[in-house]
Amino acid sequence: MDAFDIEAPADPDLEAPVLVEGLPGVGHVGKLAAEHLLEEFDAELVRRVYSEHFPPQVTVEDGRTTLASAEVYAVRDADRDMLVLTGDHQAGDGPGHYRLTEGFLDVAEAFDVERIFAMGGVPTGELVEEPDVVGAATTDAFVDDLETVGVEFRENEPAGGIVGISGLLLGLGERRGFEAACLMGETSGYLVDPQSARAVLEVLQEAVGFDVGYDALEDRAEEMQEVVERIQQMEQGASAPSDEDLRYIG
Amino acid sequence: MDAFDIEAPADPDLEAPVLVEGLPGVGHVGKLAAEHLLEEFDAELVRRVYSEHFPPQVTVEDGRTTLASAEVYAVRDADRDMLVLTGDHQAGDGPGHYRLTEGFLDVAEAFDVERIFAMGGVPTGELVEEPDVVGAATTDAFVDDLETVGVEFRENEPAGGIVGISGLLLGLGERRGFEAACLMGETSGYLVDPQSARAVLEVLQEAVGFDVGYDALEDRAEEMQEVVERIQQMEQGASAPSDEDLRYIG
Amino acid sequence: MDAFDIEAPADPDLEAPVLVEGLPGVGHVGKLAAEHLLEEFDAELVRRVYSEHFPPQVTVEDGRTTLASAEVYAVRDADRDMLVLTGDHQAGDGPGHYRLTEGFLDVAEAFDVERIFAMGGVPTGELVEEPDVVGAATTDAFVDDLETVGVEFRENEPAGGIVGISGLLLGLGERRGFEAACLMGETSGYLVDPQSARAVLEVLQEAVGFDVGYDALEDRAEEMQEVVERIQQMEQGASAPSDEDLRYIG
Amino acid sequence: MDAFDIEAPADPDLEAPVLVEGLPGVGHVGKLAAEHLLEEFDAELVRRVYSEHFPPQVTVEDGRTTLASAEVYAVRDADRDMLVLTGDHQAGDGPGHYRLTEGFLDVAEAFDVERIFAMGGVPTGELVEEPDVVGAATTDAFVDDLETVGVEFRENEPAGGIVGISGLLLGLGERRGFEAACLMGETSGYLVDPQSARAVLEVLQEAVGFDVGYDALEDRAEEMQEVVERIQQMEQGASAPSDEDLRYIG
Repeated sequence: MDAFDIEAPADPDLEAPVLVEGLPGVGHVGKLAAEHLLEEFDAELVRRVYSEHFPPQVTVEDGRTTLASAEVYAVRDADRDMLVLTGDHQAGDGPGHYRLTEGFLDVAEAFDVERIFAMGGVPTGELVEEPDVVGAATTDAFVDDLETVGVEFRENEPAGGIVGISGLLLGLGERRGFEAACLMGETSGYLVDPQSARAVLEVLQEAVGFDVGYDALEDRAEEMQEVVERIQQMEQGASAPSDEDLRYIG
Repeated sequence: MDAFDIEAPADPDLEAPVLVEGLPGVGHVGKLAAEHLLEEFDAELVRRVYSEHFPPQVTVEDGRTTLASAEVYAVRDADRDMLVLTGDHQAGDGPGHYRLTEGFLDVAEAFDVERIFAMGGVPTGELVEEPDVVGAATTDAFVDDLETVGVEFRENEPAGGIVGISGLLLGLGERRGFEAACLMGETSGYLVDPQSARAVLEVLQEAVGFDVGYDALEDRAEEMQEVVERIQQMEQGASAPSDEDLRYIG
Repeated sequence: MDAFDIEAPADPDLEAPVLVEGLPGVGHVGKLAAEHLLEEFDAELVRRVYSEHFPPQVTVEDGRTTLASAEVYAVRDADRDMLVLTGDHQAGDGPGHYRLTEGFLDVAEAFDVERIFAMGGVPTGELVEEPDVVGAATTDAFVDDLETVGVEFRENEPAGGIVGISGLLLGLGERRGFEAACLMGETSGYLVDPQSARAVLEVLQEAVGFDVGYDALEDRAEEMQEVVERIQQMEQGASAPSDEDLRYIG
Repeated sequence: MDAFDIEAPADPDLEAPVLVEGLPGVGHVGKLAAEHLLEEFDAELVRRVYSEHFPPQVTVEDGRTTLASAEVYAVRDADRDMLVLTGDHQAGDGPGHYRLTEGFLDVAEAFDVERIFAMGGVPTGELVEEPDVVGAATTDAFVDDLETVGVEFRENEPAGGIVGISGLLLGLGERRGFEAACLMGETSGYLVDPQSARAVLEVLQEAVGFDVGYDALEDRAEEMQEVVERIQQMEQGASAPSDEDLRYIG
């Protein structure tokens, strides 16, 4: 495998699709929202991206393994076609974030994407009953459009900026001529947060034009929370070689 | 030395060998199992892999030094010929894991390996009297074969996936056309675990077809445990330059 | 984007300009001093440097995002023209510091810069009422010139040397034929320190020949301190994917 | 600067010189021993090695800066000519250790070095009144020669192997045809240790054939200890940009 390896299991004709990204992050808001879309709609896998910049890892489900990757699915059940980017990992190192994001933008370019929606959470440090959706975008026009559908743009938020692949989809995307925005649901930051994911999806629903139910969202969040907890348990003495293991000399 | 440097001290004709990997990890199960095979059978060193992705380190035994490496041995005392991959280190960085694993797969390819067995431990966090062997594989056929010899395939285990070189032998191996499986012995995760290594070897024995005794396994585990403890002692004030040393200005 | 990407929004004729650098560091002295110059004088953006060696991040202001970068401004209100280099980040890794600094020196070379002033703080560990400015330089001539304007050169200070881009502007700059000095204001190290920044600017004022007021400096420091604190708050549960998030498996 | 940059201020004819290395490490034994040789003998700087694999840093002495580097000096006051390699830093990353060591071996090769002596400390965790010198070498012949001059070769020491540039001078050196040994003085590991450095030098004295006094060694160790302590103080609030600084957003 080279530094990158992109499979293209399908190459459907899409009409001016938007790219919607949801990868792991605060409150797992973005990933939960992306997974909900993929479950509720017909989704066709169009790209799978492998890279040495992902963690050296396979996931296991029912005994079958899958190499760390990100996936792009085509969804055609909305007013505008969507490409949904999701996966289980951010990059493992700084330059890797840049290189992976450029790879995702290459995919977006190949499908003539013009607008990108990155989804994530913004931590409040306390429980939020009715989470707002905070926004950031690369153009004033995109800011205006999103204000219309209820996104809040605040003077100094998020104070720490937006890091990881969501941030670079905006930063590098702008430099390559995409219009990009990040939709961040308020969340405590401690748990997988279905309320926050729903708030983000309701905004996206208005912006892109689709019709989706939210009944399954809480169950989905609970499942994800269980997985997160199992992994946290595992990681105390986990199957990952610890630093100590790495220095072991037989 | 380039990023990789592979020595080939021998190049025997092997008949459709399987690759068996045991590198440092949880409970040192995989490494202990691999060393046991190499001691109990006639083993011929066929490849030695050096790389800048290993730690910058030599081991010392009786005053003679050996540069960090991984080794591949040929074992022809089983129904199927075996290549046994072992060593003292995982890679030192994420991309290094990918690159080292590709190097190991190159060796496997050169010997016409079709099936790969990665060996390791799965941590339970508590003492296990009669450890099961949990499996993960890249094909349904391999899953079926291993179920026949007593390997358990569980819905959500290991929850954290399989990381390091064992994981990538499956993940990258699958992409290059190998069939690969990981055999993980249950283990507390705290000590070098001969019971767990024996459980893994008993499964491998059935799958590959060999006849091996286990009398020496506990002594071997005790020796390994002593080395592990000596190293842990050493590492409080150890011969490794600490961060502080690295910032020293004379 | 390649490893580096340099935009050149303007290319004014400057007469033997000096390069003045102020990036984040101890007490934010250098960055505060650089920002003060840019606010008090007419400053024209001449270069914007993007790089995968910066953190994978965008900043957000009033809902609009900016990709991590460093900027070089031309200031022509002083006796000698100045290029002022500032930004929000040091490099994320060691080799990245070297590569970014070489990029900045390329810009300096393109504008025929001969002398470089790096600005920063030197930590004292206690509050300093009237901070001195400690210096270090690449030539005896530059040391002599700076002693004339009140810079102190001490036998063994700073004991830890100068790290990051400021240090390399001297170290790599010298190797490329620039004369370079670092002006370090004494500072406690705990807070954004306007007294220290003013002390550094008063020295620079003498050395370069400009006339600037300091009335706005304290307000500017307070604003910067607020941002620093907001970010510290954010980073407990922050929008940055934590290590845990990075290992999440859905 | 490229990844490496080697200056050659002199190129004297040396007769079958040995390479003697002393870089920062446990108890600063190796570096202290190397500096003592350079002070007691006439030493001519023959190579200066810069690299982006060193920390991004300049040292400051009496206001003048020096970019992080390693130096090789020629010493011709011994029975055998010596090249003494010293400096203030190990590499900042794993692959960097490999690449720097190859660079040093290139220098050794250019001077027709056949034997390499790496010097360092082996931590005992307690104060040692009369430190032994523990050895490790790449050939039996070298082991025999060093046993003759009092070096101890122990079954399992050092248990953690030898890491950093000392270790790789043996590991990579052996692969390139050098004979190499490491001389490790027992030391508590907590302080700059002149007794340990003297023990190492007394062995080297026998092996290489030179005549040196040790009167100045304790003063030299005290000076080095002071510098180490000043740096430790500095590093609590130090001039190095902390992680927090690196994430600062203005």
